[in-house]
Amino acid sequence: MINESARMTHWGDIARERLEIISMASEAGPGVTRLPFSEQYEAAIGFITSWMTAAGCAVHLDAAGTLVGRRAGPKGAGTLLIGSHQDSVRQGGCFDGIMGVALGCLALEKLAQDRVELPFAVEILAFADEEGVRFPTALMGPRALAGTLDPAVFAMTDNTGQTLSEALAQIGGNSKVALKLTRDNKDIFGFLEVHIEQGPVLESLDAPLGVVTAISGIERHSVQIFGEAGHAGTVPMTLRKDALRAGAKLVEAVHDLALRHDLRATVGALTVSPNVVNAIPAQVDLTVEIRAPNDETREAAGVELAEICAQIASETGTQIEQSRSYAQPAVACDPKLRALLSNSVAQVSGQAPDLPSGATHDASAMADLCPVAMLFVRCRGGISHSPAEYASNADMGAAVDALALTLATYNRAPEAEPVHV
Amino acid sequence: MINESARMTHWGDIARERLEIISMASEAGPGVTRLPFSEQYEAAIGFITSWMTAAGCAVHLDAAGTLVGRRAGPKGAGTLLIGSHQDSVRQGGCFDGIMGVALGCLALEKLAQDRVELPFAVEILAFADEEGVRFPTALMGPRALAGTLDPAVFAMTDNTGQTLSEALAQIGGNSKVALKLTRDNKDIFGFLEVHIEQGPVLESLDAPLGVVTAISGIERHSVQIFGEAGHAGTVPMTLRKDALRAGAKLVEAVHDLALRHDLRATVGALTVSPNVVNAIPAQVDLTVEIRAPNDETREAAGVELAEICAQIASETGTQIEQSRSYAQPAVACDPKLRALLSNSVAQVSGQAPDLPSGATHDASAMADLCPVAMLFVRCRGGISHSPAEYASNADMGAAVDALALTLATYNRAPEAEPVHV
Repeated sequence: MINESARMTHWGDIARERLEIISMASEAGPGVTRLPFSEQYEAAIGFITSWMTAAGCAVHLDAAGTLVGRRAGPKGAGTLLIGSHQDSVRQGGCFDGIMGVALGCLALEKLAQDRVELPFAVEILAFADEEGVRFPTALMGPRALAGTLDPAVFAMTDNTGQTLSEALAQIGGNSKVALKLTRDNKDIFGFLEVHIEQGPVLESLDAPLGVVTAISGIERHSVQIFGEAGHAGTVPMTLRKDALRAGAKLVEAVHDLALRHDLRATVGALTVSPNVVNAIPAQVDLTVEIRAPNDETREAAGVELAEICAQIASETGTQIEQSRSYAQPAVACDPKLRALLSNSVAQVSGQAPDLPSGATHDASAMADLCPVAMLFVRCRGGISHSPAEYASNADMGAAVDALALTLATYNRAPEAEPVHV
Repeated sequence: MINESARMTHWGDIARERLEIISMASEAGPGVTRLPFSEQYEAAIGFITSWMTAAGCAVHLDAAGTLVGRRAGPKGAGTLLIGSHQDSVRQGGCFDGIMGVALGCLALEKLAQDRVELPFAVEILAFADEEGVRFPTALMGPRALAGTLDPAVFAMTDNTGQTLSEALAQIGGNSKVALKLTRDNKDIFGFLEVHIEQGPVLESLDAPLGVVTAISGIERHSVQIFGEAGHAGTVPMTLRKDALRAGAKLVEAVHDLALRHDLRATVGALTVSPNVVNAIPAQVDLTVEIRAPNDETREAAGVELAEICAQIASETGTQIEQSRSYAQPAVACDPKLRALLSNSVAQVSGQAPDLPSGATHDASAMADLCPVAMLFVRCRGGISHSPAEYASNADMGAAVDALALTLATYNRAPEAEPVHV
């Protein structure tokens, strides 16, 4: 046991060192800021290439900016994909995304060290743009592979006016070629993604690893509340039409809605106009985001949100306009890959809790190509998208072991027959 | 009666025309934007000079940027001051402040037309900076006269980095001389200010004019709520420390506080950080303003606010820092001047309702120099600080009549003996 534990920590220690080094590929400021197709992205490509090479992969950059490391299998064998993204939010942590790439490489290294030969090829994918920070789109890499890439995104601009197409060309990509990257899925078994949980569930269960059941669907609503401007000193309380009071009621109602439907609902952005100390707020714009692993539950909550807005408008004398601005269905993880991951996780860490993913991941776009499954790594304090984001070396080591075991047992476990033989 | 009514409308029509013309001394955009010591301020000085001249005044600009129009009285007689401010908020209306200057001039014109000679001098004062929009200070003009001007304000800068002292010099003022403008109050009877109500009280009473009992005291609180950042999809509702939920509870609690203490309390400004659709709000900064004509009531509410913040912090798992950033005591209007105004208003419009002023006015700073009183003009819909601000010609005409009558009866009405003979 002690040897095994030391071995796990060994891979975790290496992961930690690699993540610390690559975290320097960042804009200045707290935490990690690495936007797609930036000079920081290019610096990261260098580091990841070295990891993939050490894992025995042949490396190339595809036309959508995804770094692909392929370790060949026996002639005619299919391919299992592993990966995540290398980009970050602004001032994010050094685990979100990139950790999945690092641990995928280390799992291959570990298997090689253990002299385990796999009867299939493995590709490690480091996607360029999962966070959607630089351009108002995301997931270009996996969408290119799945054939779901909308050509219109290439005309989108960042805040300097550069188009996505231009940014891609600058790092050696090519938007025209990116549209032709669509993979034939008959030789692809599935896509496995390791990711930091970005929530507090595993920590609260005292579990280092968890297996994702589904990636929650998302809907976003824009809400505009129109009250009546007025001087904060002169208008009696009972004659006010205060847009912020209506907004405050809505914030509370959205919280109650989430508890009632057992899902997650958040007012993340709220702006007040005119937003001065001595004026009754005339207008409030806010966003409501609803996430649930079950689409029907989520949509029922969205319908109820509209009723709540109407009710609050009537109570406060305001006008409320509400519209759904975005919707993305839930993605279920593949039952066979999930079972295989659960077996491995249980063997490595003694328990294998299931949990939904509240966040979107590359796997959700990859699901249009092939079966997907995800392994979550415990996240200290549930904190992510922050410099304080942290996964322990021991937990990362456990993830390397569980992933390596999954690869080693793939094609053998009776409950996980490969999709294509 | 018909003649009298037509006469009232006559003065109101002139007031309206003057206010429409001077409203063009504004930055571009909706409504009126006229900031102190700006080119729009200088344009307004030209118009006001013509009004004062027509009212028989000798005009000069004092070192604090106040335009002073003086109509001399008999040798050795004292002076009654009338005035308000010429500056506006951004995108404000064309009545707030400037109407009081216009109607003061018209009352003198009317008295001259009616061949009424006053046994005292009258000065009309058009102050430069009541709104406090350009610099984080206000009321420099009346404070200079009252000797309460803090020399430190001259170092304050606007959003271009220009100091108040430099801005003042640019229009011919002088900060050093402004500090020596303090008047000797033994020859000053009082200060009368006519102002649009900026609230809905007179409208709800169907009264064109009202007499102010006191200018409410004000206190402002800065509140910072520290929650915990988190991903909107991953953190279960029950594990969140959502700063905006705490803020929403506080908005509601402030409203209840106002109802319970029968005063006005407003959360006017609220900002959320990071303010994005998919992040749990980590921090909320907001302002609470409390106004009441009675200082003890206001201060009791301020103390209760601190208790409410502590309660909400404990309920929501957030930390709340709250501090009083500003306090200004209530100013009672002079009983003798009030009675004189009430007599005139009742004679002109058949009723003379009393009401507190929830807004601060130049009169509150003038109260440090001499007795003050205020006449409010009905405000359509209670709307002010907005392009939709409106007082009718008839109501303005009534105000000219009431003010002229007050001047004509001053020194004669038994209940309004002059402060100095």
